[in-house]
Amino acid sequence: MKRKPNIAVVGATGVVGSTFLKVLEERDFPYENLYLMASARSAGKTINFRCKDYVVEELNEHSFDKPIDIALFSAGGSTSAKYAPIAAEHGVIVVDNSSQWRMDENVPLVVPEVNPDDIAWNNGIIANPNCSTIQAMVALKPLQDKYGIKRVVYSTYQAVSGSGMKGINDLKNGLAGNNEELQAYAHPIAGNCLPHIDVFMDNGYTKEEMKMINETHKILGDDDIKVTATTVRVPVFDSHSESINIELEKPFEIEDVMELFRNAPGVVLQDDVENNVYPLALDAAGTDEVYIGRIRRDFSVENGLNIWVVADNIRKGAATNAIQIAEKLLETMPD
Amino acid sequence: MKRKPNIAVVGATGVVGSTFLKVLEERDFPYENLYLMASARSAGKTINFRCKDYVVEELNEHSFDKPIDIALFSAGGSTSAKYAPIAAEHGVIVVDNSSQWRMDENVPLVVPEVNPDDIAWNNGIIANPNCSTIQAMVALKPLQDKYGIKRVVYSTYQAVSGSGMKGINDLKNGLAGNNEELQAYAHPIAGNCLPHIDVFMDNGYTKEEMKMINETHKILGDDDIKVTATTVRVPVFDSHSESINIELEKPFEIEDVMELFRNAPGVVLQDDVENNVYPLALDAAGTDEVYIGRIRRDFSVENGLNIWVVADNIRKGAATNAIQIAEKLLETMPD
Repeated sequence: MKRKPNIAVVGATGVVGSTFLKVLEERDFPYENLYLMASARSAGKTINFRCKDYVVEELNEHSFDKPIDIALFSAGGSTSAKYAPIAAEHGVIVVDNSSQWRMDENVPLVVPEVNPDDIAWNNGIIANPNCSTIQAMVALKPLQDKYGIKRVVYSTYQAVSGSGMKGINDLKNGLAGNNEELQAYAHPIAGNCLPHIDVFMDNGYTKEEMKMINETHKILGDDDIKVTATTVRVPVFDSHSESINIELEKPFEIEDVMELFRNAPGVVLQDDVENNVYPLALDAAGTDEVYIGRIRRDFSVENGLNIWVVADNIRKGAATNAIQIAEKLLETMPD
Repeated sequence: MKRKPNIAVVGATGVVGSTFLKVLEERDFPYENLYLMASARSAGKTINFRCKDYVVEELNEHSFDKPIDIALFSAGGSTSAKYAPIAAEHGVIVVDNSSQWRMDENVPLVVPEVNPDDIAWNNGIIANPNCSTIQAMVALKPLQDKYGIKRVVYSTYQAVSGSGMKGINDLKNGLAGNNEELQAYAHPIAGNCLPHIDVFMDNGYTKEEMKMINETHKILGDDDIKVTATTVRVPVFDSHSESINIELEKPFEIEDVMELFRNAPGVVLQDDVENNVYPLALDAAGTDEVYIGRIRRDFSVENGLNIWVVADNIRKGAATNAIQIAEKLLETMPD
């Protein structure tokens, strides 16, 4: 589109919402009007963005009566369930960060480096994948294209910022010696690893684990890929790390895999173990790329590969990915 | 043996060494004389143990001239390389916590719940396995016996105490905002996950990862088990956690696996996800058991199983396991 779009950020006061604003500014995302929206609890707050004060509006059924082109939602599943369809009915395209619409077959689930073409068949809602899935997809897609993927075993090391301010508070308070009033977690997170992200399902998996399994199938467009996952919260503020064990369909050479990642979109190869270079949560924090390293053959299975993948879960895992989707949208939207 | 043995603790001032003393006391390990030994740097210190002062002796070539039955070594690989054979020549049985002798075919590598019979063929040195291996073995042995194990994928979440006081200091200092003078690690550990434990090998694996692979084969007595590992240091003071993905040879029912672990030696089953019960590093710290939970079928492969295994790396992963070996020794030693 040639004119500048009108943008809404829904959930503007949350951890992801405020990162939406940061990333919009950094990427110089074009907009004519910007509307910041949140629940009644946060409405009325003033946010200064690019030297202009914005009063946060209360999200309600009339929020989308005004002309808005793209709404970036990060306000939780139930808010998305109610308001994303209202926005879509008003002609807004919603890029939704909640899990509400991800597995809906009428909603594309998009990582722009991986399946940008799926944006085209949206019906007013495009889902942003789960944070831990996004970074894995950026790593797996080049492997899928070149070698085919037979099976994936995920073990994750996820940051507390994925639980929003409550998660950050639980770790801050825990590190200060207060584990009494937990806001986000069932157990203390400071000095601990919690194999429990989101709720437990009847099959013994957490919802986070099932998200990784199901979203991998949808984004890579192949339900035949075998996937299992163990998702774990660790006492890290920012960036998710992932140990990914992969069985490829075809034989490979490690040097070719290195070269593949060296040239893959959105990827930074960090693999020079002699010099202690490998992806690290602290290094990834505040950046938009997916870092891949510890690339080595898994000798325990035919065409086996181990990799270590790190990304900022709030940026590439949420805000940046959503805004990259919005950037792709702009290319195709009518004037 | 009917008389009480003479015991030496070598490396008595280290993290594992001081835990040797704690565990000896807790388990009321019988001894006639106790000798505490350490390098020249720590020799001369006084340690009060069970209301008696012991002066730490400098370890040297004459340390084992006196009658000692069992020496618990935790003084690093090069010290073990030099002094364990000297001790053994003097008729001492060394239980060695370093990696020096573990893969030596003349040295048994023992987890008492798993392969106690290997103690019998010792030639004066018995190796204590790597901390991350020990807890995995306690979990895998019952599965091996009942179903057979085809393949194992380890991803670990390891505590800084595994690096001794230097690791503990790096995390303490990092949490206090000082990441400048790292003692143990190549990168800050506070707020970070380091996919780097021990040195890197030519094949891209760390020595820690190769230890898990090779020691699994030796302890389970089956080189045909396929094993791969990614070992990661996390900002946790005590207890290692492990995500273990397993392919069993035979079909299984989850309830049978639960029952198996409920009755397995050294294991505490903690698997009641509806009530947020699963193994946790903070809960395992200070205890001698191996905790197993998050037991669920891996639908991505035939006879696949995911489990989460946690144990205190300094106790069951080092000191307790060594003392359990010493307890087994006592049963078989001549008077």
